[in-house]
Amino acid sequence: MEQKLSSGRFKEIQDELLDKFNASIFFDRKLYEENIKGSLAHAKMLSNQGILSDKEYEDIKKGLSQIKKEIEEGEFIYDIKDEDIHMSIEKRLTEIIGDAGKKLHTARSRNDQVAVDFRMYVLKHNRIIASKIKELISVFVDLAKEHKETILPGMTHLQHAQPISFAFHMLAYASMFKRDYERFISSYDRNNLSPLGCAALAGTPHNIDRFATSKELGFKEPTINCLDSVSDRDFAIEILFNIATLGMHMSRISEELIIWSSSEFGFVSISDKYATGSSIMPQKKNPDVPELIRGKTGRYYGNLISLLTVMKGLPLAYNKDTQEDKEGVFDSVENILLSLDILIAVMKTLTINKDKMYKASKIGHLTATDLADYLAKKGIPFREAHHITGRAVALAEEKGVDLSELSLEELKSIDSRIDDADMSLENSLNSRDSYGATSPKQVETQLEYFKEFLNEN
Amino acid sequence: MEQKLSSGRFKEIQDELLDKFNASIFFDRKLYEENIKGSLAHAKMLSNQGILSDKEYEDIKKGLSQIKKEIEEGEFIYDIKDEDIHMSIEKRLTEIIGDAGKKLHTARSRNDQVAVDFRMYVLKHNRIIASKIKELISVFVDLAKEHKETILPGMTHLQHAQPISFAFHMLAYASMFKRDYERFISSYDRNNLSPLGCAALAGTPHNIDRFATSKELGFKEPTINCLDSVSDRDFAIEILFNIATLGMHMSRISEELIIWSSSEFGFVSISDKYATGSSIMPQKKNPDVPELIRGKTGRYYGNLISLLTVMKGLPLAYNKDTQEDKEGVFDSVENILLSLDILIAVMKTLTINKDKMYKASKIGHLTATDLADYLAKKGIPFREAHHITGRAVALAEEKGVDLSELSLEELKSIDSRIDDADMSLENSLNSRDSYGATSPKQVETQLEYFKEFLNEN
Amino acid sequence: MEQKLSSGRFKEIQDELLDKFNASIFFDRKLYEENIKGSLAHAKMLSNQGILSDKEYEDIKKGLSQIKKEIEEGEFIYDIKDEDIHMSIEKRLTEIIGDAGKKLHTARSRNDQVAVDFRMYVLKHNRIIASKIKELISVFVDLAKEHKETILPGMTHLQHAQPISFAFHMLAYASMFKRDYERFISSYDRNNLSPLGCAALAGTPHNIDRFATSKELGFKEPTINCLDSVSDRDFAIEILFNIATLGMHMSRISEELIIWSSSEFGFVSISDKYATGSSIMPQKKNPDVPELIRGKTGRYYGNLISLLTVMKGLPLAYNKDTQEDKEGVFDSVENILLSLDILIAVMKTLTINKDKMYKASKIGHLTATDLADYLAKKGIPFREAHHITGRAVALAEEKGVDLSELSLEELKSIDSRIDDADMSLENSLNSRDSYGATSPKQVETQLEYFKEFLNEN
Amino acid sequence: MEQKLSSGRFKEIQDELLDKFNASIFFDRKLYEENIKGSLAHAKMLSNQGILSDKEYEDIKKGLSQIKKEIEEGEFIYDIKDEDIHMSIEKRLTEIIGDAGKKLHTARSRNDQVAVDFRMYVLKHNRIIASKIKELISVFVDLAKEHKETILPGMTHLQHAQPISFAFHMLAYASMFKRDYERFISSYDRNNLSPLGCAALAGTPHNIDRFATSKELGFKEPTINCLDSVSDRDFAIEILFNIATLGMHMSRISEELIIWSSSEFGFVSISDKYATGSSIMPQKKNPDVPELIRGKTGRYYGNLISLLTVMKGLPLAYNKDTQEDKEGVFDSVENILLSLDILIAVMKTLTINKDKMYKASKIGHLTATDLADYLAKKGIPFREAHHITGRAVALAEEKGVDLSELSLEELKSIDSRIDDADMSLENSLNSRDSYGATSPKQVETQLEYFKEFLNEN
Repeated sequence: MEQKLSSGRFKEIQDELLDKFNASIFFDRKLYEENIKGSLAHAKMLSNQGILSDKEYEDIKKGLSQIKKEIEEGEFIYDIKDEDIHMSIEKRLTEIIGDAGKKLHTARSRNDQVAVDFRMYVLKHNRIIASKIKELISVFVDLAKEHKETILPGMTHLQHAQPISFAFHMLAYASMFKRDYERFISSYDRNNLSPLGCAALAGTPHNIDRFATSKELGFKEPTINCLDSVSDRDFAIEILFNIATLGMHMSRISEELIIWSSSEFGFVSISDKYATGSSIMPQKKNPDVPELIRGKTGRYYGNLISLLTVMKGLPLAYNKDTQEDKEGVFDSVENILLSLDILIAVMKTLTINKDKMYKASKIGHLTATDLADYLAKKGIPFREAHHITGRAVALAEEKGVDLSELSLEELKSIDSRIDDADMSLENSLNSRDSYGATSPKQVETQLEYFKEFLNEN
Repeated sequence: MEQKLSSGRFKEIQDELLDKFNASIFFDRKLYEENIKGSLAHAKMLSNQGILSDKEYEDIKKGLSQIKKEIEEGEFIYDIKDEDIHMSIEKRLTEIIGDAGKKLHTARSRNDQVAVDFRMYVLKHNRIIASKIKELISVFVDLAKEHKETILPGMTHLQHAQPISFAFHMLAYASMFKRDYERFISSYDRNNLSPLGCAALAGTPHNIDRFATSKELGFKEPTINCLDSVSDRDFAIEILFNIATLGMHMSRISEELIIWSSSEFGFVSISDKYATGSSIMPQKKNPDVPELIRGKTGRYYGNLISLLTVMKGLPLAYNKDTQEDKEGVFDSVENILLSLDILIAVMKTLTINKDKMYKASKIGHLTATDLADYLAKKGIPFREAHHITGRAVALAEEKGVDLSELSLEELKSIDSRIDDADMSLENSLNSRDSYGATSPKQVETQLEYFKEFLNEN
Repeated sequence: MEQKLSSGRFKEIQDELLDKFNASIFFDRKLYEENIKGSLAHAKMLSNQGILSDKEYEDIKKGLSQIKKEIEEGEFIYDIKDEDIHMSIEKRLTEIIGDAGKKLHTARSRNDQVAVDFRMYVLKHNRIIASKIKELISVFVDLAKEHKETILPGMTHLQHAQPISFAFHMLAYASMFKRDYERFISSYDRNNLSPLGCAALAGTPHNIDRFATSKELGFKEPTINCLDSVSDRDFAIEILFNIATLGMHMSRISEELIIWSSSEFGFVSISDKYATGSSIMPQKKNPDVPELIRGKTGRYYGNLISLLTVMKGLPLAYNKDTQEDKEGVFDSVENILLSLDILIAVMKTLTINKDKMYKASKIGHLTATDLADYLAKKGIPFREAHHITGRAVALAEEKGVDLSELSLEELKSIDSRIDDADMSLENSLNSRDSYGATSPKQVETQLEYFKEFLNEN
Repeated sequence: MEQKLSSGRFKEIQDELLDKFNASIFFDRKLYEENIKGSLAHAKMLSNQGILSDKEYEDIKKGLSQIKKEIEEGEFIYDIKDEDIHMSIEKRLTEIIGDAGKKLHTARSRNDQVAVDFRMYVLKHNRIIASKIKELISVFVDLAKEHKETILPGMTHLQHAQPISFAFHMLAYASMFKRDYERFISSYDRNNLSPLGCAALAGTPHNIDRFATSKELGFKEPTINCLDSVSDRDFAIEILFNIATLGMHMSRISEELIIWSSSEFGFVSISDKYATGSSIMPQKKNPDVPELIRGKTGRYYGNLISLLTVMKGLPLAYNKDTQEDKEGVFDSVENILLSLDILIAVMKTLTINKDKMYKASKIGHLTATDLADYLAKKGIPFREAHHITGRAVALAEEKGVDLSELSLEELKSIDSRIDDADMSLENSLNSRDSYGATSPKQVETQLEYFKEFLNEN
């Protein structure tokens, strides 16, 4: 992370291959905004500390503003010889404003400059992703509001287990994604510290004010130890992990959307706006979007392992290995944002096939547990209760109906103590009324909980 | 995660291979304490809610207390037929106290039982690891106190860069490990919620009090959505990630210890108590401990990827795949604790070879940056300052000395503006006095910072 | 990997913690057989070279034979102080036969000893796993023989696409697992080289015969460079990778078994011998086995990443990090073997619900592609053919039937050029008759291919 | 992997977000050459089988040739609406030559088309990488030829162990990279099968000749089962694994170059052509290249885990998840090729500081093992030999010299049986003369071995 051309000590001309291999400008130019922001804060502080004159500061501001414009209008020339965006902008600044450009680098080095720029990028995206997650949660909440009494078979092992509401199912995801939100915010708070002014590794003899640049750039405070600061990439590893976990959660809802969209299940239909057809098979409608969301889990895991591997066993402080930190972060951030956007869109436009869900709930005697619980409440020992339930299921099978469809009389015929049992799906749903459970009343409590969360954050 | 033998519906006798494949009792018996604690809390609540009689509750308490004793005294018989520790203890309880044992399972299922037991294990170890990290930090702080003026070559790219103090180097690690501490505590706080009472997936119709069991077990509150709760393993993934990152940091100090222990560096000597010799080469002293600490990074990364892979694409709610969640967590937790213990011991007994460090600092003209900074402060443009420094380095090389050893006269001979420069290592150290830098004064500030952290947490 | 207690140079007594941390005996004792086999070969060679006397060789043989018996009868005492199985056996040997035991270590060190023992373990298991894979393939082949005309909906995106036979589907897995077989065999061949005699890192001045020990132990030849040989763990990384890929394939058939076992699909039923029920829900039958097979993919990926991480950046030659190589390999090997066994058992006893499969094939107009192909063969341009097909599908939907159920007359009414089309599922199956396709004739060819493979290997 | 716009069944206009999310054209256009090659082979076969007329075939050839030119001259327009390179080229072809363009797609689908194109890319790069590895091996061989008697301290645990030659050290890497070569070639051979003609999943009713296209494209033969063929990505996973292992090996030589380049070691100097300096510290020369090579290990591991994760649990046959297969492969392939190039260049221009190596070999009594072996050869029991050696080392330390510098007289004074021992480094080197060892004679044998390998492959 140090200058390539400056030293007079090198005897041989460097090989072009070296430029090609070493240069990071083709990916780190994504940091141009952070670079300019960081430089402006540094220049302002240098000027306040009397290290730069007013004139120099003004020139720098003007120069950087022009460069920003050049970049955004596509006129800026990236040269592989400049190695990275930081050198590139510095060189251009000096072209525009002369030696004051070089003075900007007083009391900093590329080590702390890269550290602060990359950290600003990561912190910013922690917040952007967190905000998208909230949007996604609110979509699940909206779906839940509509479907407190929409019954589908709650599954374990992909086998019908007990009747639950679609609202309850949606709020399971709200609950999952709320943890994701909290992780991004927690990571933001923990890493909201400025490394600017740490220079190469040991600080600087110049009379700088790191608290001023920290404040100017929106950080909580400067980092406490410079040797650590220039080689710390925890903030990047954390966002990669948080994206990996978020992506894993998104792969779970995706898996469900794919299975639910199958002709066999038919629980939901993805909007034509977000589905694809087949060139050969005119009847097909493919859930490409959830499949691709699920597939992208791979790159999130890969990018996480990648940076963990890079950092393993690195001695202090800066090593060139660390240059490998950015591409994976950019890749994970960009893909998760796109995936969040399209998952939000898919969920918002999803058709819920209530009838199919209800019909499926009548297969597999989903209320068997309810009968056992009913008997247990009457004080009948578990083992006996379970046995009676088995006989009721057998009767239903014999009659070719679901347990939920047996009449009270039929149930009584099995055991006379079943004198007021209601085996219906609706009763099952309503009666699971413990805290966190699927009853409409409990779901209402959960809705309040998430509304509060959405309002507060 | 459901009972194997109970249903009368199975026609064929199960294969022994199935037991061997399905059983988790050989590893999940580590959770016996959490299992018993969880059952006691559940029984107390059931009793308070009138679901269990006082007699039944007393019997359960007595029975579980006896089982705990049997386990701890090695008398408990683990049977692969019982599949897991939960079934195993329940079966034994029924053997001891009769049907009341079976009643204990009212209003819960193995799904929430496993979830709460495993979560208690993980939460407990978050705190244990965090506490060990604090111990490790205090060792770095103690070393730093002793070595504020011990100079060694600060490195980038494993090349001598600038003089720093050994205290400053140690506090870089204190700073790193402080983030680890914060991550474990943050994960503890975020996941400190009780899933007990969620039953199989949808809650229960029994009149239970999840707030009571939550409080009894030391949780902040019960989880909000049961479907999520029985399939959530975020708490486990988080501890695996936090251990992976902690392990990565430990691999960095280990790498340095290994390099520093080489005959070429000789900066430190690992105590004979923690080094190993060679059967063949009597002269050798091998840094096995840091090597093994470094090597264990592999398993931390592996265990993390393992559980992330397991969870990818799982539909709600419980799937048997999730049984694969525990072994990796046990493995990472046990190995990191042992590694922390021995790293603490190694650092406490480390011999710091000040002379070797100081001598090395005199190689490579480490104060070259200081000269450039000195000139820059005098208003000499960067490019010129750099050029003059280059000439000073050349002069030193010509004289066969280090730049830090040139006299003021010699420096003046290069440029008359160098009229009061002090190129010594000591001056360099003292002058890097910006916030977070290596000067003894700044290191003192850092020491205060970490002492406060250690006191507060 | 060097002796702990031998050197007189250590001043301080080692800490117990060191033993606990450094010892590998609790897992590497799995290598006892390889250790003894390797020692016997080494002793025989030393004797043939005149380095050991006949008496010494005989004593060593007797001693090792006794130790083997002690281990297998559970009488051998493992002491953490012995650090690893190699030291442990050597110490015991010396106890039994006196100093000749020590002579066994002439011209070898623990570095090459561990390398050869572990390599023998890995090579052996390459062959065991490969052999199990063949068994698994033959189960798929057997299923295919029975189901050349069993039609099910071939899927892409979990959506019905085209009719295929169940035989064809099974042979897709035969094809997949054949590649796995080839990988294990290829890895076996590539790594079938003996490191024994490489000593610590540089060979030995003793007059040994590495070709003799190599032959005795069943290797192709000795390794060519000793420095590489003592630190090479490629053979272990390869088996971890091959297991990871095999496990990934097994996760795919598992996913299908889980989906096919759902009440919605119902394509197959797992034998009661290999399914589990529910304590609460008497109607459930859970596909625990395929779920757990799928879940174990996590540990295979994790163990692979683990060893890759360990080896990253290790300088030559032996480093203690490498001790971390074994546990992951043992874990992957044992789990994949168990998983293969139970998958074989599950597939052998699987019930194929032909009716459900056939019925499902009549949903989704699976023969639409056939109609388009029929028209294309008549020279009708693709775009028009596709359009006509779309209209035929529309007609079928209007009539509430599947495209395969339209009569020739009805088809003609759409376009008179459809004068001899057969839209039936059977015709579709038979007509896909290109090499590698689903027609019974092609499946027959594939069966021959796999029978030949099974016979030859 | 199916057409987006063709079906008349879609009611709503698709969202732009879908294009952005689904499109792979921004990365899969790297496959344009393979796409065109594959299409030409397919068209030729269709023409030979009478499915295309001669005119149509000629038009297709001309059209594709024009498209190739357009792409290579930068005139081709990539439209996100075309989703991927395959659609893009097909659409353009139809623009140029009319409906014959559409006919090209007869008897294939995008599923087999993508499979064959990507496989061709991977197979080609297996060979390119293998060839570069040979180049790298020949650099190590060349270095070895020059340095058969250049002595450096052979290390274990980064501690001096025994004297070895630099040639021997270089050939350890030759040996390592030879295994890499073999893996790439083995993977090439195993996967050299053509999926073309498998169509969507089940083959085609058209009378095609898959053997013809297979031969035309340079494959050994067509794949045996189409369902497997369209979803098989083993070939891609294998190249990712082989690159990961190769990268791991490259990280090991890199670590050594970095350590050897440190001021403390000074064993080698990287050419100024491939080193970088510092903007601030004019004295520095940083080993950026090996650091970056080492750092890139992270992405190789990450890309491997990424694709393994994608494939986990995917049901047959094609799923959109698989679209995530390419970027990681492109990334690993491009980075490893660049890394190989620059490592070759660095090794070719490396300065070997023989004096520093020799001097270092005189530190740490490296010939202690030789003395023990000398005594053992005289029949002195190991334990006693070891003890005597310890005393000799003590004497050397007392005299402030290395063991290798003690005279025969001095050695005799310790034990009279040491009557003709030669403790010199040179003697040690020469005497380690077992197969695979470090003696110049053995290194000569190894050189022959590698020369033969290079000639044969």
